[in-house]
Amino acid sequence: MIMSNFYEMLRSAWAGNNSLVCVGLDPDFSKLPACVKELDRPIFEFNKAIIDATHDLVCAYKPQAACYAAANADDQLRDTIAYIHEVAPTVPVILDAKRADIGNTTRMYASEAFERYAADAVTVNPYMGMDAVKPFLDYADKGIIVLCRTSNPGSKEVQDLLLENGERLYLYLAERISTVWNYNHNVMMVTGATCPDELGEIRRRIGNEVALLVPGIGAQGGDLKGVLEQGLTPDKTGLVINSSRGIIFASSGTDFAEAARRETIKLRDAINALR
Amino acid sequence: MIMSNFYEMLRSAWAGNNSLVCVGLDPDFSKLPACVKELDRPIFEFNKAIIDATHDLVCAYKPQAACYAAANADDQLRDTIAYIHEVAPTVPVILDAKRADIGNTTRMYASEAFERYAADAVTVNPYMGMDAVKPFLDYADKGIIVLCRTSNPGSKEVQDLLLENGERLYLYLAERISTVWNYNHNVMMVTGATCPDELGEIRRRIGNEVALLVPGIGAQGGDLKGVLEQGLTPDKTGLVINSSRGIIFASSGTDFAEAARRETIKLRDAINALR
Repeated sequence: MIMSNFYEMLRSAWAGNNSLVCVGLDPDFSKLPACVKELDRPIFEFNKAIIDATHDLVCAYKPQAACYAAANADDQLRDTIAYIHEVAPTVPVILDAKRADIGNTTRMYASEAFERYAADAVTVNPYMGMDAVKPFLDYADKGIIVLCRTSNPGSKEVQDLLLENGERLYLYLAERISTVWNYNHNVMMVTGATCPDELGEIRRRIGNEVALLVPGIGAQGGDLKGVLEQGLTPDKTGLVINSSRGIIFASSGTDFAEAARRETIKLRDAINALR
Repeated sequence: MIMSNFYEMLRSAWAGNNSLVCVGLDPDFSKLPACVKELDRPIFEFNKAIIDATHDLVCAYKPQAACYAAANADDQLRDTIAYIHEVAPTVPVILDAKRADIGNTTRMYASEAFERYAADAVTVNPYMGMDAVKPFLDYADKGIIVLCRTSNPGSKEVQDLLLENGERLYLYLAERISTVWNYNHNVMMVTGATCPDELGEIRRRIGNEVALLVPGIGAQGGDLKGVLEQGLTPDKTGLVINSSRGIIFASSGTDFAEAARRETIKLRDAINALR
C-alpha cells in the first residue's frame, strides 16, 4: 500500500501512543475557564495547556476552524498548530474546516489550510463533486478527510437519500471517495459515532485502506462500542475517534488540563479495552 | 410576501441601480495590478477602487472568503465590507464562504459572517442537512444562500444523482430549501450560469419568491441569455448575476478601476437588454 506522509504520521501516532483518540480543540471562548479568560492570548494558552497534558495520549488533534474565526483568533490557531508540531511532531493536526469551492477558489482554501496554518490534514465537503476538492487532493502528502455520513441529527435529510439503484447517497459517495477521489492514497472519511450501523456499511464497502474520522462521542451521544465493532480494520486501527467538549471542558476550574488528561486516558482506555 | 431586511436591501439595489449585476471581490493577490501590489494594504486598496468605480451599477458585492484567508488578509476583508456599507448602504454584501457544520459550530460560522465581518448574506453548503445551516437561517434579517446546482464542471457527480423517485438531487433539494428551510423567508440558492436548463427547472419548481445567485458568467463560460430566459421572475428580477475575474481583472494596468466600471456597465446593459 502506498502511504502518504499524512498516513505515515497517523500510523506512527496510533502505534506510538497506542491510541485512537483525537482531541478536538474547539475553544469556544465563552466556555473557557475563568483563570484562562483573563490571559493575553486565552485561546492559545488554553490549547497549550491541553496539548501539554495530552500529547502522549492521542493520535491526532483537530482544531475547529469556526471557533477561531468567530473569536478573531486566526493567529492563535496558527500558533496552536505550530505548538503541536513543536512538542508532538509525529501527531498530525487536522484542520476541521469542511471547505469546498470551485477549483480556483479551493486552491486558496488549500493554501489556507496547508501553508498559512500548516495543518497535516483538512476536512472537506463533497457536495460540489471531486473537482471542487481536487486542489486539496493534489497535496499528496496531506490528509483529505471528506464528509460522508455526519454525526448531526439532520444528516439523514441529504446523506440518506435513496438513489435510483436503491443505494443510499452516503454509501455511493463512500465508494467513489475511497476509489476515484483517492488517487493519491491520502483520503479519509468522516462518519459519525451516532450512526455505527452506517459506519459499518461504509467500512465493508470501502475496505481497510481508508481511515475514518469519527466525531460524535461524548456530548453528541455516540456509541463507542458500536463504532469499534463496525469500524476497526484487521490491524485494530483505521479509526480516529474525536472528542472535543468531553475532554477540553471536563473541568472549568484551574485543573482543566489535568481533567482533560484524565478524560483522555479514560477514553483511550475504553477504546483500547474494546479493540 | 414577508421580506427580510436582506431581501429589502436586494430589492432596493435591484431597483435603485437598475442592475442584476453582482461584482465578485476575489482579489487573488498574484493577479493584482503591479501598481496596487506595492501599497500597504493592497487587497483593501484594490477593492476600494473597484467599489468606488462600480457601486452605482450593482445589486450586490460578493467577496470570496478564500482569497482573504489564503492571503492572511482577514482585516482587509472586514474593512472592505465596512467600506461598502459606508459608500453604498443599500447594496448588500454576500460573504461567499460555503460553510456548514454541526449546529454548535455553525453558530460560530454565523458569528464570523454576520458579527465579525458584518456581511448581509452568506453562502452555505446543504450536504449536512438543515440543522447544520439552521443557526444561519435563524438570522431572519440576513440572506442565506444555499448551494443547489453549482457552476463547476464536476457538480454533476453529486448534484445530478437520480433519486429513487426519478428526480435529480439538486431539484429535490431546491424544493426543500425553498420551503422547509425558508421559514424566515430569507433563503436564496446558488445555480450556475453554466447550466441554464437546470436553472430553469429550479425556477419553475420553486416559484418566484426565492432569488438565485448565479455565478459562472465570464471566465467560466456561462450562458447569459439562457440564464435570463430561464431564471427571471415576472417582475424581471429574481437573479443576482455574479462576475468576478471578468470585471475586477479587466485591466492589469493603472486603469483597472475604470476597466472594471466599463465591464460592469457592459454586463449590466447586456443583462438589461435581455430583461
